[in-house]
Parts: sequence; structure tokens; C-alpha cells
Amino acid sequence: MTKAEISFLNQGTITTPAGFLAGVTHAGLKKNGAADLGILYSEAPCVAAGVFTANRIKAAPVVVTSKRLPSEAARAIVVNSGCANASLGEAGLKDAAKMAELAAGKTDVPVESVLVASTGVIGRRLPMELIGAGIAKISLSKDGGHELARAIMTTDTRPKEAAVTVRDSDGGFTIGGIAKGSGMIHPDLATLLCFLATDAAVSIDFLKCALKEAVAVSFNMVSVDGDTSPNDMALIMANGRAGNEPITGGSNLTEGFREALKELCIHLAKGIAADGEGASKLITVTVSGAISPEEAKLAARTIAASPLVKTAVHGSDPNWGRVIAALGRSGAEVVEERIDLYIGDTCLVRAGLPLPFDEREVIKVLDSQEVPIKVSLNLGTASATAWGCDLSREYVTINSDYTT
Amino acid sequence: MTKAEISFLNQGTITTPAGFLAGVTHAGLKKNGAADLGILYSEAPCVAAGVFTANRIKAAPVVVTSKRLPSEAARAIVVNSGCANASLGEAGLKDAAKMAELAAGKTDVPVESVLVASTGVIGRRLPMELIGAGIAKISLSKDGGHELARAIMTTDTRPKEAAVTVRDSDGGFTIGGIAKGSGMIHPDLATLLCFLATDAAVSIDFLKCALKEAVAVSFNMVSVDGDTSPNDMALIMANGRAGNEPITGGSNLTEGFREALKELCIHLAKGIAADGEGASKLITVTVSGAISPEEAKLAARTIAASPLVKTAVHGSDPNWGRVIAALGRSGAEVVEERIDLYIGDTCLVRAGLPLPFDEREVIKVLDSQEVPIKVSLNLGTASATAWGCDLSREYVTINSDYTT
Repeated sequence: MTKAEISFLNQGTITTPAGFLAGVTHAGLKKNGAADLGILYSEAPCVAAGVFTANRIKAAPVVVTSKRLPSEAARAIVVNSGCANASLGEAGLKDAAKMAELAAGKTDVPVESVLVASTGVIGRRLPMELIGAGIAKISLSKDGGHELARAIMTTDTRPKEAAVTVRDSDGGFTIGGIAKGSGMIHPDLATLLCFLATDAAVSIDFLKCALKEAVAVSFNMVSVDGDTSPNDMALIMANGRAGNEPITGGSNLTEGFREALKELCIHLAKGIAADGEGASKLITVTVSGAISPEEAKLAARTIAASPLVKTAVHGSDPNWGRVIAALGRSGAEVVEERIDLYIGDTCLVRAGLPLPFDEREVIKVLDSQEVPIKVSLNLGTASATAWGCDLSREYVTINSDYTT
Repeated sequence: MTKAEISFLNQGTITTPAGFLAGVTHAGLKKNGAADLGILYSEAPCVAAGVFTANRIKAAPVVVTSKRLPSEAARAIVVNSGCANASLGEAGLKDAAKMAELAAGKTDVPVESVLVASTGVIGRRLPMELIGAGIAKISLSKDGGHELARAIMTTDTRPKEAAVTVRDSDGGFTIGGIAKGSGMIHPDLATLLCFLATDAAVSIDFLKCALKEAVAVSFNMVSVDGDTSPNDMALIMANGRAGNEPITGGSNLTEGFREALKELCIHLAKGIAADGEGASKLITVTVSGAISPEEAKLAARTIAASPLVKTAVHGSDPNWGRVIAALGRSGAEVVEERIDLYIGDTCLVRAGLPLPFDEREVIKVLDSQEVPIKVSLNLGTASATAWGCDLSREYVTINSDYTT
């Protein structure tokens, strides 16, 4: 087995893999006239899997879609922004099912093969007439992925989309994806919305595992504000158009698929963190030397999510004590006398004690678009990386006046 | 046994109970010339107990003081603001012990009878010359509690102090307290700093339990920003000057002491939440009908700490979906179809479904200084109350530029 070559494609999106089309429209849910409704469509039945929010309050589309997965015959995803279809009981479930039914009619596929997702304000009914009229207007195209990436945006300022190809001597395939999420982002099983599509042929069991694994190191390691939405989901559809021997746990392309999916998800997840509500900087926290992977994750996530770390980064204030304080409350095993802490390449704490450091150098790192914070616990061999963003006045502005 | 009468005193503070004195000075740790060093002193040896931060990184004064408690011979607390004396290894421990020693010399009590506390920036050595010169300058007075409440402030905008008397036919006593804490406030065993003093005679075991119990329903139910400081502690000293029969688990005044201590701690804890960094409103979240007290607490704390709930309250935005979303991710057992939700007296959600509501009425509540949010889970009989504050642009401003 040769190692597969993984590369990101220029302008890749979810419709880059063979056999996927997408289309969008402005149904009328967003006030600004932007696209707010869209369909992803596969020309062939797909093996499909999903991971869903850990929130105990689940939005109607989460309930409907999670019942239809895993599947070996998925054909489409219909998604709207501007309305979450959450906290609406039976009426919400009926609306979500109806939305899938309308999309099934439009694309001429079985109702059960359509997955449905929503994002936006909680507690408001979907305007089903607008949804119906909107779906009727959608036309699908090979280029539609870019528009779909925009149609799922809420407070996002830019779309998150990418595609990677995997090649080895036996052939290859492509995986594309789009994601949205700007607020109510915290690691607890999924991101707000992430849709992935691949032309690879894969077994259903392998796909479930690969998705779970990729989400664990990407969307589950992102925090914008510590809140988890009832609407979160990450879905993947694989239509087999690449014509490869179906990938299972032990195939030649197994590692290539797993790695490529991870890299794609990390790319999209970093995009979500960097575009967090009001964010001007991406914070990358790497914790190494932990006694277990779980503790490494816990520590990295806690630091990346700390409001005091986030405001310090916002103000380019080298107040490293807040990193140490967040680490200490994370629940991860730490021995104070062993901790090393770096901002960029500058060591600020060695063996638990502050070092004199060049403040201008550290402020220069804090002023840049990507701020790396590294902590070595020096207790074990496990490590993890989490992504977050700075906390700005704009976050407050955006969220103080959202529904009204 | 008659029920004891509990009442808050006008202008009560930590030196209101008999036999307690306090004094402060400006040692030079705060840049603005305000008092930053103080001593609480008891004329008689005290039964004393403490609860300390759950943060695994413990500041030096936490290490030193926790070793000296519980005690039956405590005499004084020496405390500084402006420097946390944390993350400094052996040097920090030496400084904390020295600070206690200097205060012991000043007040002529045994070194081991002095407790020490610090609050401020992490990772900077205490300027021991300034501390020494400052302690020498302090003069103690019966009125000094008010000044001490100010001397422990950092980003707090106002002191938190109060005293309650407890009277029944057998006699009575007084409990006074001061607290500080404005940022890095999250329920995880204690608050930033809380000092309590009483002239009641109490047994050491009873005092430990009563303090733990009072902290659990007060400081542990407050969140400003989800961060927990390595310096948190709540200390109580009881000097017996009231001359009552020592209170144990089964005395006449037992219930009165427990209740009074709870009420005092809740009063101080609410003061901390209301004065959270950048806060303009106190948020009171009551969750009832939970299947256990732990789940009620978890749910109430998660809602009170949610950045999205806090920003919505800040903007007086009746976006109740965020309360439901925070509830759902809290980990508490919930059944969506049973949830009732109130803001003030207005029911916005009944049996999990949105009700039409008078938006002006709810906005009026959200515009007031204390915003009550009530959730009934309708599953069991347990309830809990948590306190938080709104999240404003000022929080970001305060914390973006703290050390530099």
C-alpha cells in the first residue's frame, strides 16, 4: 500500500465531487434578501451518516434527519437559514417532514431519502408557504455549492467551503464540504451545520466511524461562545461515482479517506472559529504532554473557550495568568511545577514559573490574525488542539439585538 | 425552641460583630492610590473554617491558609489586592508566609493564627518591601470593616458588605461579612474572596458544615464569566464574644445560625453578580421541578452563565430560545413537552410550546435592574436559584487591557 496523496482543490466546494448538484433561492426568511433556502442533490443514491447535537432540546429537523440516518439510499439535503424550527413540538416536526417532502417532490426522489436541516431563531414556525414557493423556484447546478455555502449563513460574515482530492495508485476520489456557524458554537458533538459530500464508494459502517472521528478532532474542538445549539448537525453523503472499490476499514484507500476527511473538517472548523461572531483573530491552543487524549482535549478546549483568555487576546494583552487559571479549572491533571507555556515561539512560563520575556515580541504575535498558544504539561504523551476566537465588543453588539 | 429572628443591620459590615477590628492602607500595589492592603483582627481566638478554589492551580495564599484551617485559635486575616501571588512556586509560598508573619508581628498574635489572602494579577511577585511598610502603617478600628471591604476590590465598582443579627429567647449574635469579585467568577467551590466574622460561639465541626452549606447556595451559584480563579476563598471566624452556649448541630440557635449565614452569603453573592465586570443588570434564574437538587443547580447555573442569554438580557431582547438552548445543553434531565418558562411574571413557553406574549411587558422586565427568569421542568420537586449578570461591551473593554 502506497500512502495516498491528499490535496486541497482551488475553489473547492460541496458540489466538487462527481454527481452532486446544488441550488438556492431567497424564500423570504432573511430580511436582507439573501439566499436562505437550498438543496444539495446527488444523482445517485448515497451511503450517508450524521452526527447530531448533544443538546437535550433537539430541533425538529434534527429529530427528522437523525431517524433517516444512517442510510444507503440518501439523495438530497434541504436546508434553510433564518428560522431554527426548534421548540415547536408536533407542529415543528410536521413542518420539517413537509419541507423534506416538498424537496423530494421537486427532485423526484423518495421522501425518506431527503435529509432536512434548519438554522436561525428558535421558537418561530417555518413559513411553509414561503418554503414551498421557494423550493419550487430552486434550480440545481454543478456550481451551486458556492451558493449553498452562502445560503446557510446566519451571522457568518463569509462562507466556509472546501474540497480535497485523495489519489493513490489504485485511483482516487474527492470530498467536498460546507459549514456555517458563528455564534452558539461550542464543542458538544457537532458544529452548527456541516454538510459533506464525496464521490468515493464507502461502506456504511466505515463512513459512520470516519465521520465521528473527523468531527471529534475538528468541530468538537471549536468554541466561539460556549453555547451549543439544538440544531447542530454534520452530515456526509457518499455516492460512489468515483468508481473505486468500496472503502471499508481495511481497504487501500482507508487511511487516505480518514485523513482527508479530518483535514477537510479541520479546515472548515478553523474557518468557523476565525469567523466567530465579532472575531478578529483565530486562537489555536495546543496542549501536549497530557496523561490522556481526553485530558489534553479538555485542557485545550477550556483555554480556547475562556472569556478572559479571549478578551486578553482581543486586546493583545500578554496576560498569561489567565491561560494558567483556565488550565487549572479545566479538570485536566496538571502539576504546576511542570507547566511550560508559549505564545507564538516565546516561552513565558517554564516549569511553572514566569520567565522574563520580550513583551513587544509577544504583543506582535497577539496582534496577528492567528494566535498560537502552546502548553506543555510534561506529564504524559497525549496532545490536542482546539480553536477559538477573540471576544470583542462586536460579539456583544451582534447578540444584544438579534430577534428584535 | 422558638424560631430565631434574623434581620439585616443598617450599614453592617465584617467588624459589626463584637470583638472584631480592621484597618487598611495604600501599600502601593494599586496604581490609583486606593487602599490595597488590610487586616481583619479578632480580640479573642476564633474557631475558623474556610472553603477554597477548585482550580488545580492554587495561589500561594490559598495553599498557606488552607493548611492553617480549620482552627480553634485563628486571630487575623491579612489580605492584599492588586497582586494574586499565584504561579510563583516556592517564592510565592515564602512571600505568603512572610506576609502572615508580618501581620502577626503587627498584631502581636501567633504566626499560625494569621490567615492570608491575595487577589489581582497572576504571575507577579508581591513587592514585599511595600507589603512590610504597609502593614506597619495599618491601624485597626471598630469601623475598619467598611474600609476593608473597599481595600479588597479590584475591578469591583462598589464594596459588598453586610451584617445580620440572630435573636431568640436564649439570646443572640451577629454575623458580618465582606466579599469581592467582579471577573473570573464562576461557581466552583467558592467566590473570589469572602470573609465572614461572627461573635457567636460555635463548635468547629458545625462551623465547617454551616459554611460549606451556605457557600453551596450562594457563591457557588454565581457566574460572571465562567472563569474560576486560583485565589478563591471564603473564610469565617467565630470569636464567641456573644457569650451564647456554643452552637453545635443540635442547639437552639443552630437553625438560626445556618439560615442567617445563608442569607448573608446570598446577599453578598448577589452583590457580586450585580457588580460583575461591565454588568448593568442582575439576572436571577430559578429552576424548579427538577428530578434532583444537583440537576436543578446545573440547569440554573448553565442558563445564568450562557453568553447568549447574557447578551440577550443586555439588549433587552426577549429571545427566550437561548434560555431553552442553554437548558438543553446543561446536562439536566429535561422533557421538552413539560417545560414552562417565565420572564418576570409573563409565561413565554408552556408545555414546551411558545405562547403569544406582550412583548412590551417582557421588554420592561428585561430593562429593569433585576431580571427574573423562571423555568419549571415539571419532572420532580427540586429547585435552585443562580445569579448572573448581563454581558456588555464594557466587559470586553475591561478585560482587553488589564495587565498592560
